[in-house]
Amino acid sequence: MIRKKRDGRALSREEINFFVGGVTSGRLADYQASALLMAVFLNGMSADETAWLTEAMLRSGVSLDFSDIEKPKVDKHSTGGVGDKASLILAPVAACCGAAVPMISGRGLGHTGGTLDKLESIPGYRVHLELAEFRAILEKVGFAMMGQTAEIAPADKKLYALRDATATVEAIPLIVGSIMSKKMAAGLDALVLDVKTGTGAFMSEEEDARALARALVATGNSFGVRTEALLTDMSQPLGRGVGHAIEVRECVEILRNEAGPGAEEVRELSLELAARMVALSGVEPSLDAAREKTRRSLESGSALECFRQNVIAQGGDPRVCDEPARLLPLTPHEVRVESPRTGFVTEIDTAEVGHAVAALGGGRTRIEDAIDHAVGYSAEAKIGDRVREGDALGLLYCRDLAQAREALERIRAAYQLGDERAPAPPLIKEVITA
Amino acid sequence: MIRKKRDGRALSREEINFFVGGVTSGRLADYQASALLMAVFLNGMSADETAWLTEAMLRSGVSLDFSDIEKPKVDKHSTGGVGDKASLILAPVAACCGAAVPMISGRGLGHTGGTLDKLESIPGYRVHLELAEFRAILEKVGFAMMGQTAEIAPADKKLYALRDATATVEAIPLIVGSIMSKKMAAGLDALVLDVKTGTGAFMSEEEDARALARALVATGNSFGVRTEALLTDMSQPLGRGVGHAIEVRECVEILRNEAGPGAEEVRELSLELAARMVALSGVEPSLDAAREKTRRSLESGSALECFRQNVIAQGGDPRVCDEPARLLPLTPHEVRVESPRTGFVTEIDTAEVGHAVAALGGGRTRIEDAIDHAVGYSAEAKIGDRVREGDALGLLYCRDLAQAREALERIRAAYQLGDERAPAPPLIKEVITA
Repeated sequence: MIRKKRDGRALSREEINFFVGGVTSGRLADYQASALLMAVFLNGMSADETAWLTEAMLRSGVSLDFSDIEKPKVDKHSTGGVGDKASLILAPVAACCGAAVPMISGRGLGHTGGTLDKLESIPGYRVHLELAEFRAILEKVGFAMMGQTAEIAPADKKLYALRDATATVEAIPLIVGSIMSKKMAAGLDALVLDVKTGTGAFMSEEEDARALARALVATGNSFGVRTEALLTDMSQPLGRGVGHAIEVRECVEILRNEAGPGAEEVRELSLELAARMVALSGVEPSLDAAREKTRRSLESGSALECFRQNVIAQGGDPRVCDEPARLLPLTPHEVRVESPRTGFVTEIDTAEVGHAVAALGGGRTRIEDAIDHAVGYSAEAKIGDRVREGDALGLLYCRDLAQAREALERIRAAYQLGDERAPAPPLIKEVITA
Repeated sequence: MIRKKRDGRALSREEINFFVGGVTSGRLADYQASALLMAVFLNGMSADETAWLTEAMLRSGVSLDFSDIEKPKVDKHSTGGVGDKASLILAPVAACCGAAVPMISGRGLGHTGGTLDKLESIPGYRVHLELAEFRAILEKVGFAMMGQTAEIAPADKKLYALRDATATVEAIPLIVGSIMSKKMAAGLDALVLDVKTGTGAFMSEEEDARALARALVATGNSFGVRTEALLTDMSQPLGRGVGHAIEVRECVEILRNEAGPGAEEVRELSLELAARMVALSGVEPSLDAAREKTRRSLESGSALECFRQNVIAQGGDPRVCDEPARLLPLTPHEVRVESPRTGFVTEIDTAEVGHAVAALGGGRTRIEDAIDHAVGYSAEAKIGDRVREGDALGLLYCRDLAQAREALERIRAAYQLGDERAPAPPLIKEVITA
């Protein structure tokens, strides 16, 4: 099998089952698995092989079944970015439009934050739910948020550890297997993917991200789950906030229709993703109808109300919906990251911004690290904006001014300034459908 | 490092040292080593990287030092084939011409035989020598034969086991590291390589074999060891005999100048390799002079005398030199492999012939298997020969007629017969020098 893949030939369904089963059970030696992973990294996999890999990983564990819930089940998955908080808006929006959103989210790692960590900045909010409770909240509120369970696609955990240790994380078939085995186990009717590209994305090159998006969509549809992907910009933080409390604040302000101008792109992306979820799952007959309905649910305050019901159901303090600034405190220190010159923001090393915030305690470098939810960064100047020397590129929220200096320098160095105005990057680059 | 090689970039000397040191000591996880091996397999290594790999593997163990022996030290290494018995002729020929040949040989595995196993078909012959005894025989007789010691290039043993389990055996830089780390540890002034190509070689494609030969020669010379390679034919068994006793018999007959016509190509190849050893090591000033001297040493019987002295020194029965047929018995059964039709031999699946003999007990499928030295095959018809239906393609020597049937069918199927005479393949295809 290793030899076949090494020579660029396709593996059969049985061979892929044998591989995934062997890795999960430990019958297959790690050094053989990792040689095969490298061969897959370098020689790729066909659409069939990728689907079989996903299927084998999916079958390594249990599948959820929400068929007793009458509403169409739909989820969104983002490949991850900096300041990507769209889930917190689109879930209540799609839910109050009539979809059921069983959202199984992850933790942050490296330069990106995780939805579960962000939710935990709400006092009392519980993301560790028993499946029965998750189901009950989903049925009652329309959306529920929890973490990955050990019973879903256990092959992924083992394979990911090997990929991480052998520089084979970024292989498209392996990424597809990892994402889709978990999503296909979640009992969904439809799935919308947000594949990010740019300096803050895991796939910084647009061509790679497009190939990943296509492979994800093909695999989802091959399982009979209606799947679409948006290829979206991650060449700068999404919206303003980067951190935990600061991002939840921004979302509540958007749900309250009180957000400032910098939050416009978060609102736009969240609404577009929610509209596609609503249309793709069949809740609304057309994308235009879905867009109209999702926009109204946000503007009318129904989405905020749905969010409040979820916070209550998951044990959080619902006053977060009324007084976000008081319930979601930031650190006492606010430090201005000043522009070293007058000019236009032309480029931002977005992953570096994420890493700088994580290094302050606002993220993890190892999965067991604790998170300081009050740490964060607010991106004031975006690509295309004109700044004068000494203007704030952004505001850093930190506990310790000495430690802040390093983060401040890293963030300042992440901004490129030029004499010519760079165009603001389009938020949605492409829609990939089956 | 895995990432670098995965992306097709070159590793540094320090990185390669770290890798080899880590594999040998067990500090580096096997699954990381095997991912790197696969990346090397698929993305290759530069000449510098290959030399550094060889150096690091060499330094994982001890080096021999024969500098107190005044004669130039020279060895030959063959990449392995079926019926390749040249070592047993060229070592005494080169030794009695004035070279010292410290030959460290291997065991057979798969379809190929090993020099050590062949020598053990001589009653009493010992290949397990202490280094002091090996050195004494080398000094007294001019050549000595022993197996690999655990102290030489221990990294190779560990790496080979991983390569074998992960389908990364056939990568040129890894083959070069494996062969040359051991040869560079043997205290040589010169080295002649016999790189085989064809249906019985590990590298069946001529282009691959040529690339391997070039890499071997470049690496040897980069260590200051004068190195040359011959690219030679392995599209049919070399000479007649395939097995152990049968091959030693053939060699003694050649050394006795009594061999039949089928042995001519073994004699020719052995003399050419010996002449190159003698010339390259500086014993003779030119290749022509070396050719003349080696031919005379064979025809005069001096090479046979030198072989006899070695047999005595290594504990074997010297009467093998006088009565090879009595001292090297074959099995009682001789079975004719009959040609199914009249025509010309156009092609022989030589590895299949080797496997068939091994399956009868005349080879190993696992390194711990015992060998039946009396089992063997004599290739009577060679490529280009005309046979009639019922003529013997070859003679099979076996213990058990029932078991022989399978071998007989395998061998018969390995021969392609056609209506047009195929040209006999040239024995020496190319000479590769620094």
